[in-house]
Amino acid sequence: MTGKLYGIGVGPGDPDLLTIKAFKILRKAKVVCYPAPDNGESFARSIVADMIAPDVQEIPIVIPMRVERFPARSIYDEAALSLRERLDAGEDVVVLCEGDPFFYGSFMYVFERLAADYETEIVPGISSLMTGPAELKRPLAARNDVLTVIPGPLEDERIEQLLGGCDAAAIIKIGRHFSRIRALLERLQLTDSAGYAERLTLENQRIMPLASAEEGAAPYFSMIFVYKGAETWVQDLPVANAQPIAELSR
Amino acid sequence: MTGKLYGIGVGPGDPDLLTIKAFKILRKAKVVCYPAPDNGESFARSIVADMIAPDVQEIPIVIPMRVERFPARSIYDEAALSLRERLDAGEDVVVLCEGDPFFYGSFMYVFERLAADYETEIVPGISSLMTGPAELKRPLAARNDVLTVIPGPLEDERIEQLLGGCDAAAIIKIGRHFSRIRALLERLQLTDSAGYAERLTLENQRIMPLASAEEGAAPYFSMIFVYKGAETWVQDLPVANAQPIAELSR
Repeated sequence: MTGKLYGIGVGPGDPDLLTIKAFKILRKAKVVCYPAPDNGESFARSIVADMIAPDVQEIPIVIPMRVERFPARSIYDEAALSLRERLDAGEDVVVLCEGDPFFYGSFMYVFERLAADYETEIVPGISSLMTGPAELKRPLAARNDVLTVIPGPLEDERIEQLLGGCDAAAIIKIGRHFSRIRALLERLQLTDSAGYAERLTLENQRIMPLASAEEGAAPYFSMIFVYKGAETWVQDLPVANAQPIAELSR
Repeated sequence: MTGKLYGIGVGPGDPDLLTIKAFKILRKAKVVCYPAPDNGESFARSIVADMIAPDVQEIPIVIPMRVERFPARSIYDEAALSLRERLDAGEDVVVLCEGDPFFYGSFMYVFERLAADYETEIVPGISSLMTGPAELKRPLAARNDVLTVIPGPLEDERIEQLLGGCDAAAIIKIGRHFSRIRALLERLQLTDSAGYAERLTLENQRIMPLASAEEGAAPYFSMIFVYKGAETWVQDLPVANAQPIAELSR
């Protein structure tokens, strides 16, 4: 009997945004795997650190941090091999994933290498797509709105086209593209319809109207939410921890 | 001191997909409000029924069930008045919402009437947007994919245009539009890239490749997931409870 592979979403950062299901699986886990940068601690692991028993075998997938490049195949090839060893030995393996495993999640890289050979269960997680609007206190999309999730690294022309065709947009992976995207939204007269969010639900969370966000770089996982549909939500977007973006390190 | 308004996402159906945060708020709640049809029990309430203490004051918002019409303003106007009474009396009010409160969620109708006057907290929930791919065992979107959420009631021409501009799509609110949308995807040669999902995480969940789904009507909350991006996920989509759609009542 081979072991079972779990991909569990651990949410945006607040440990209480784990699901009860993920919590139960994690508490029974004997082998826990997670992505980790080569220059610091794993964010996914830090979210659930208090739920991992001391005798758990931990398998970090160490990813060299390069600006917005996708991890080399060889790193996940190697990680998959060591997970195969555990699974072949009949042990269940729990892979942690920030946010949701299948919404631009890193679990995909493990999944595509192992799911054909082992029983696999994916536990959805709270995504920043839902957390941003909750913190900004403005609905994401309603009724028959079209919602588009737009990766920030795409070219201006493509982003402009996508924004033209939707009622609501979440622009993700902002990072070093912040100034460019902000300028684009300004040109499209969408700045006043946009909210900015970073480090959601963490102590240093920053949310604000895009108009209040200063020029500079933003963290990789920061997002901009745009609403241009028919609904009229009257509240001003809240401002929290609104220090200039430029002062923050990546 | 007025009370605090909570909008909490209770997820797609499995009570274990509630977040720990929502669970904690619900266990302390003295007043719980939820939408309910005029011909049956509230789905949102049924998900968390075991977590509601017997002495809790319950305020159902009774919504007449008409096929895919949005609820009349007057119903939410009236509900908002009775919630104001509780909040003005200093009581916290917890409003339950299927899935996520701000992702096409019914909490929006309460929020837009009360959030300007009362402290409000939104607790994000697990959305069907994340649960569908988890159950279908196929990633939703990855890397720099563009993801578009398309309401099924939109016209063919608009849906076709949106599908042309994205890498991944979730078509929501399928309901009586099932046959039309299926025919459209067939014409666009996207049937083989599409998965169908309904009643996610419930006992009578049905997931299958769209090609296996028979003609007919589908439940209102059913969804179709299309992937046409660059990733190659090799697994066939799983089939569960694949009885003909036409045999199921709405």
